[in-house]
Amino acid sequence: MRLFPKKKAHTIGTSPGSLIFTGVRHLDDPHISIIDYASNNTDEKRMTSVTEAFPYRDKPSVSWINVDGLHDVELIGQLGEFFSIHSLVLEDILNTQHRPKFEDHETYIFLTLKMLHFDVEKRIVQAEQISFVLGQNYLLSFQERTGDVFESVRTRIREHRKRLHNSKADYLLYCLIDAIVDHYYLVLEQIGETIEQLEDEAITNPTEEILSSIQTIKHDLVALRQAVWPLREVINDLLHEDASLLEQSTLLYLRDVYDHVIQVMDTLDGFRDMVAGLFDLYRSAMDQKSNDVMKLLTIIATIFIPLTFIAGIYGMNFNPEVSPWNMPELNWVWGYPAVWGVMVAMTIGMVFYFKRKGWF
Amino acid sequence: MRLFPKKKAHTIGTSPGSLIFTGVRHLDDPHISIIDYASNNTDEKRMTSVTEAFPYRDKPSVSWINVDGLHDVELIGQLGEFFSIHSLVLEDILNTQHRPKFEDHETYIFLTLKMLHFDVEKRIVQAEQISFVLGQNYLLSFQERTGDVFESVRTRIREHRKRLHNSKADYLLYCLIDAIVDHYYLVLEQIGETIEQLEDEAITNPTEEILSSIQTIKHDLVALRQAVWPLREVINDLLHEDASLLEQSTLLYLRDVYDHVIQVMDTLDGFRDMVAGLFDLYRSAMDQKSNDVMKLLTIIATIFIPLTFIAGIYGMNFNPEVSPWNMPELNWVWGYPAVWGVMVAMTIGMVFYFKRKGWF
Amino acid sequence: MRLFPKKKAHTIGTSPGSLIFTGVRHLDDPHISIIDYASNNTDEKRMTSVTEAFPYRDKPSVSWINVDGLHDVELIGQLGEFFSIHSLVLEDILNTQHRPKFEDHETYIFLTLKMLHFDVEKRIVQAEQISFVLGQNYLLSFQERTGDVFESVRTRIREHRKRLHNSKADYLLYCLIDAIVDHYYLVLEQIGETIEQLEDEAITNPTEEILSSIQTIKHDLVALRQAVWPLREVINDLLHEDASLLEQSTLLYLRDVYDHVIQVMDTLDGFRDMVAGLFDLYRSAMDQKSNDVMKLLTIIATIFIPLTFIAGIYGMNFNPEVSPWNMPELNWVWGYPAVWGVMVAMTIGMVFYFKRKGWF
Amino acid sequence: MRLFPKKKAHTIGTSPGSLIFTGVRHLDDPHISIIDYASNNTDEKRMTSVTEAFPYRDKPSVSWINVDGLHDVELIGQLGEFFSIHSLVLEDILNTQHRPKFEDHETYIFLTLKMLHFDVEKRIVQAEQISFVLGQNYLLSFQERTGDVFESVRTRIREHRKRLHNSKADYLLYCLIDAIVDHYYLVLEQIGETIEQLEDEAITNPTEEILSSIQTIKHDLVALRQAVWPLREVINDLLHEDASLLEQSTLLYLRDVYDHVIQVMDTLDGFRDMVAGLFDLYRSAMDQKSNDVMKLLTIIATIFIPLTFIAGIYGMNFNPEVSPWNMPELNWVWGYPAVWGVMVAMTIGMVFYFKRKGWF
Amino acid sequence: MRLFPKKKAHTIGTSPGSLIFTGVRHLDDPHISIIDYASNNTDEKRMTSVTEAFPYRDKPSVSWINVDGLHDVELIGQLGEFFSIHSLVLEDILNTQHRPKFEDHETYIFLTLKMLHFDVEKRIVQAEQISFVLGQNYLLSFQERTGDVFESVRTRIREHRKRLHNSKADYLLYCLIDAIVDHYYLVLEQIGETIEQLEDEAITNPTEEILSSIQTIKHDLVALRQAVWPLREVINDLLHEDASLLEQSTLLYLRDVYDHVIQVMDTLDGFRDMVAGLFDLYRSAMDQKSNDVMKLLTIIATIFIPLTFIAGIYGMNFNPEVSPWNMPELNWVWGYPAVWGVMVAMTIGMVFYFKRKGWF
Repeated sequence: MRLFPKKKAHTIGTSPGSLIFTGVRHLDDPHISIIDYASNNTDEKRMTSVTEAFPYRDKPSVSWINVDGLHDVELIGQLGEFFSIHSLVLEDILNTQHRPKFEDHETYIFLTLKMLHFDVEKRIVQAEQISFVLGQNYLLSFQERTGDVFESVRTRIREHRKRLHNSKADYLLYCLIDAIVDHYYLVLEQIGETIEQLEDEAITNPTEEILSSIQTIKHDLVALRQAVWPLREVINDLLHEDASLLEQSTLLYLRDVYDHVIQVMDTLDGFRDMVAGLFDLYRSAMDQKSNDVMKLLTIIATIFIPLTFIAGIYGMNFNPEVSPWNMPELNWVWGYPAVWGVMVAMTIGMVFYFKRKGWF
Repeated sequence: MRLFPKKKAHTIGTSPGSLIFTGVRHLDDPHISIIDYASNNTDEKRMTSVTEAFPYRDKPSVSWINVDGLHDVELIGQLGEFFSIHSLVLEDILNTQHRPKFEDHETYIFLTLKMLHFDVEKRIVQAEQISFVLGQNYLLSFQERTGDVFESVRTRIREHRKRLHNSKADYLLYCLIDAIVDHYYLVLEQIGETIEQLEDEAITNPTEEILSSIQTIKHDLVALRQAVWPLREVINDLLHEDASLLEQSTLLYLRDVYDHVIQVMDTLDGFRDMVAGLFDLYRSAMDQKSNDVMKLLTIIATIFIPLTFIAGIYGMNFNPEVSPWNMPELNWVWGYPAVWGVMVAMTIGMVFYFKRKGWF
Repeated sequence: MRLFPKKKAHTIGTSPGSLIFTGVRHLDDPHISIIDYASNNTDEKRMTSVTEAFPYRDKPSVSWINVDGLHDVELIGQLGEFFSIHSLVLEDILNTQHRPKFEDHETYIFLTLKMLHFDVEKRIVQAEQISFVLGQNYLLSFQERTGDVFESVRTRIREHRKRLHNSKADYLLYCLIDAIVDHYYLVLEQIGETIEQLEDEAITNPTEEILSSIQTIKHDLVALRQAVWPLREVINDLLHEDASLLEQSTLLYLRDVYDHVIQVMDTLDGFRDMVAGLFDLYRSAMDQKSNDVMKLLTIIATIFIPLTFIAGIYGMNFNPEVSPWNMPELNWVWGYPAVWGVMVAMTIGMVFYFKRKGWF
Repeated sequence: MRLFPKKKAHTIGTSPGSLIFTGVRHLDDPHISIIDYASNNTDEKRMTSVTEAFPYRDKPSVSWINVDGLHDVELIGQLGEFFSIHSLVLEDILNTQHRPKFEDHETYIFLTLKMLHFDVEKRIVQAEQISFVLGQNYLLSFQERTGDVFESVRTRIREHRKRLHNSKADYLLYCLIDAIVDHYYLVLEQIGETIEQLEDEAITNPTEEILSSIQTIKHDLVALRQAVWPLREVINDLLHEDASLLEQSTLLYLRDVYDHVIQVMDTLDGFRDMVAGLFDLYRSAMDQKSNDVMKLLTIIATIFIPLTFIAGIYGMNFNPEVSPWNMPELNWVWGYPAVWGVMVAMTIGMVFYFKRKGWF
Repeated sequence: MRLFPKKKAHTIGTSPGSLIFTGVRHLDDPHISIIDYASNNTDEKRMTSVTEAFPYRDKPSVSWINVDGLHDVELIGQLGEFFSIHSLVLEDILNTQHRPKFEDHETYIFLTLKMLHFDVEKRIVQAEQISFVLGQNYLLSFQERTGDVFESVRTRIREHRKRLHNSKADYLLYCLIDAIVDHYYLVLEQIGETIEQLEDEAITNPTEEILSSIQTIKHDLVALRQAVWPLREVINDLLHEDASLLEQSTLLYLRDVYDHVIQVMDTLDGFRDMVAGLFDLYRSAMDQKSNDVMKLLTIIATIFIPLTFIAGIYGMNFNPEVSPWNMPELNWVWGYPAVWGVMVAMTIGMVFYFKRKGWF
């Protein structure tokens, strides 16, 4: 997930409402699939052409038309025209760096948000933009690539769960948003584990790679914040703007999702605090290590430098024959053992001194 | 208390309102107990089956039904069905990582919050989720495990205290919330003592364990904040949303609890500041120690390196016989004592220099 | 002033409204004194029993009944009963760790706040709780111990100042609050001086005691903030809640106090910034000192290690008799002076090098 | 872009509404150009005198009169007088350090904002002030110098794009604002890349230039914030103040621009966090390097100081002839090889010790 | 400008509304001067007694009565009485540490704010309090000492500028406020230059004086913030409280001043960020320098310690006559040159090693 949105090469200088795909092309051909269900039957198929989707617009059953791959601008344009979607909305669908957003266009509701995925290996959060257009009895969803977090919802449709089959398309929209937000918890959990791991590593073994990892996690949190923070507003708007397409019962469920988003944000704030502390941890551990290195140097130097000095003294060449004051120690019977004795005594003294200081 | 909520394995992909227990199973069988009291009598018993609790729903006396242990999903479901509790509420009761929350469902009030306990040994805050469902004349409470902070309330019921026995179930709810918040003070006090202890230790003896302890306390505060912060909102909602189940007189008492929660938050903010400063303290003390180590090294080196150099000079083998300029000192009568004199003088000079610099 | 309120041993588990003294007992017996004044006379006396205060309740003159010492719970209870004070209010009066608070009970106003005192020696802010109950023509004040900041107000009453004697009890309340807030300025001034002193000391002489002092001042500010911050709200409530006991003219004066409280908060915020910078100052000065120590070590080592090496060279025992290449210098006529020359030249070179680097 | 606005020499002490140019003179003569278009034709020309612009005021077609260069105060004054622009507005146009601002003057709308440009070489954000005056069917724009971000809009006019040619001047204003905000993305992208680059450099090679670069980027962000933050307000005011000159359909487009500004601000906040962390990164990497240096010193010293001591021992001149205890080793047959053996063993031991500590 | 207001010795314990001067006495006698102007004439004179000012109260022309020096309490009292100014307002005028403030007293408007001056030498911001009382056709201004920022306004009055002479006293008030706020820009510019200068110095030459200067600038910003922050409120109140003394046209100009104050605050916030970063800069540069010192030490030690060891080896006195294994090198023909060769080779190797590490 990029920290800064890329619009440059693509859209700068184009007129507003121009349909231009700003993301990365993840697949060869866009996939269009549909799940259509009413209280007693479910119909699911993969389409080959966008026109196959058109009849579902006016069918009374709930139709979920999902498009994977946004680079086929013409296809999106056709869909948009048939479902009478405003060109600015289509532009937002194609701009994969868009901020989460909600707009009520009377005959349909537009919603864009982020699906998140945490790459445990590289410790990077990846985001995929997903946009919804909710009509009276259809729901269009637009994803950047195949693969999503909706498998459980599909299963529930296939298993003819009562509540889903008896509700309108707005309940389906809720289910999908719920699945996305639920998946945020998984990402948070993985990031939380990574942070705790980094905390342990920072204390026990502060290396340059950990520095990089801390920085990466920090980027992740900034990116996550940018994905989740506006979502709170989006769902709040959903709840309070009196959109006629949302049933009262669905709002109750959406309030639940709102609670979850708030909790995700709380957790993110906690993580921020933790990561801010990681640098302190790292540097404190680094200081600790520097101190240990310096202690070793000081112990060695403090013990041996004086000893070397003493050895140096008796290496001097003053002539004992000239005067009885010139290094008479050299001719003493116990001179050499006495020097050793002094040295050993000094060493023992030093060792005791350092022990008392708690350096060993 | 975990910093990030665990929902992953359990609930991701299930339909909303599904009853799934997300916590850790703390006991073999759930305990259900009831205390039923009216103005003149108290009835207390332990139940063996959930159906024994049903008659109390419609009894005019105040009935407090307490459930310890949430893993028996079926039991909770039965209770929920009999007391007509919404399935989303039941889901929240079973999700032990839920954010504190208040909901007014007309015929009952739902409330979930955290009991806190500070493990002094490990310096970790432990949280247990407790949920309340308040009806006209009953109060259901759901705890994760046996053991709580309500013993004093039970005593007051058993001792037939007038105010309790003359009030409705809402006053009992207040008493329990008050007991929980009162217990927060105990936790704060213990954390406060731990912080002051760490401050002293960080200054006098900065070690790696203290680094870990600081990190642990920081986690505690983040966790505490997440438990207490939403509580403020919860009680504020209780006070201002015109819940018909709450008597005017009880609101007066709840305002008192609100004051306490605000004070707990104030104190938490103070702690945050203190803990943020702990790292600075630690690192400052660490710097101080590094400086002391380096001073010792410098003193030793500065005194002995020049002395060793002098000894080295007179260890040179220039031939005095070749020339009168070659090390004539070696043949001086007072040469050796003179060298000692110079060395002693230099040492004394150095010692004075370091004294004046305040290094001793 | 403690950072965390102590309630534990005393009140946890008691029923709400129980009268329990939570502070430290500062005196043997509580003192009750009264000053009663009307437009033309002043009456002042010390009471021996609480019942002596009762007649003043209904006297039309303004009566200020002051209680020093809160441990005599029974006495407070009697007063409370006679003046019809709610038991929750009495509980708040006795809880000496209470947050500043204002409550309008129709027939009386309740107000609790903190008197502050700065112990210059220990650099600790001490707080004493003071509570007021303002009735139609009486004012009750409750202090933890004897000694307060009201002497100037008493003098003004004794001197029959016109404005005081012509006003109701609410003006007296204003005068007392004003005296308390005025005293905050004194505390701020003393803390400000302490901070500036610490800044100087941190730069010139960063020691461990300064580290402790910084920490103490930080605690002080956190504590002060907790005393002053809620006071703003309290006085704001006084101004805006339409308490019938407060005359319009008194509100004008209270607005002045409000301005002062805001300025106290502004100043506190400034202090916070300054104290946050103290650690940076300390550590920067510490770094400076470490750098100086290391420079000395480096100068000594860089000058003497090469010299010692040269001396070592000519201390080698290669046999000049075996070969003309073996240390011929030893037998040169000017060998020894030449070595000295080289050494002196090297030293001078080094000294110049360090001078140019600005190390001296 | 300066962090502090320069008004000093120019305007201090002048009466309000005086027309004084406060910027830097970028060109010799101001350029005035006009593009005039209606549904079916476009007319574009460069003017030599300001009076040539006057007829366009009352022409029903949309006229965009652009002035490059603001130092010709008289010219601006003439334009202002003819188009009845308030003198305070003209003062704001000439004050090139003005904060982004919107004012509705009934007959015209005044708007001033910043065009941004990132100088990749020097890593400095440059801002140029641009002011708009929107009338019923004309739009005046004032720029500090030639060169802007509007080329794409001009192209669209020249290509007779339907939406532009069928709309009023307010739509043209929107197009220009959109072009400016679109250009912010480009600047953000370049800054984002610079930050990531600095992060890498700070970890691998922390030098003094990087310190300067970090500081420069920090200045950039402060400056950017001051350009973008008020813009949010400006566009919000545009949207909500019921300016009669803005058509409903244009407001829809402006809401889109508002979204973009919000996203720019989000991104800026993210950058702020990143840059705040850059110092930590830098210093952590610096610590790492210091530690490496010290390790090398310690390894060398710890290995050689003891060895040198041993060599020193056997350089002593105790007289073996006086006593059998005086350095008998010197006369041992294997004395010299034994000393080498001890030395090699010690070295190997040390190397192993450092290996185990992970220092190599 | 003091960070903490001084009230202690002066006013604590006095009754409210007592006139007590709390500042420093800057001049011997207060100066009172008046400028009186109507559409066609200007009258300017210096007064010797306060009573000379009285006739101007009811004169229809605009009269600006300026008082320099506030220590003559009696004089201020007389003025206050004649112009019917409330005693609390007079107290605020004399309290030179007052927070900027606006009060509408129906018949007059009271306003107090700060004139700022930056002492470039000492890098200290100095503040002088100025208070205004605006009546129907007079304006009283009270300054602490002679010398102000109003010379340009006086010139405009003397030069009979049309707008001034045709407006009421409220326009004069605006002109003076505008002059004060304009002067803030000058102070900001000087501080901005000081900060940029400190940034450069902190990177290139981090000394203790810079540490002090950073601290001083930090104090300045805190003080500035306390002067400017409330001013925003003050002018906002002026604009929105419907003061009948302010003409609609003047409000338009005041809105301009409001914009300026906002911009001053924006700039201050930017400065805060910059100064907060100064410590980081300083310490990073300090680290850099420490690292350089240590590198030098390490280079010297790493090169010479091994060399000294080798010299030490051949200074040993093992007896070559006892055994062929005892230091046979000493008797080799090329022994001495070979040792030199080894030493030179080692030195070159080391130098290459350090070069490759980039230490030179």
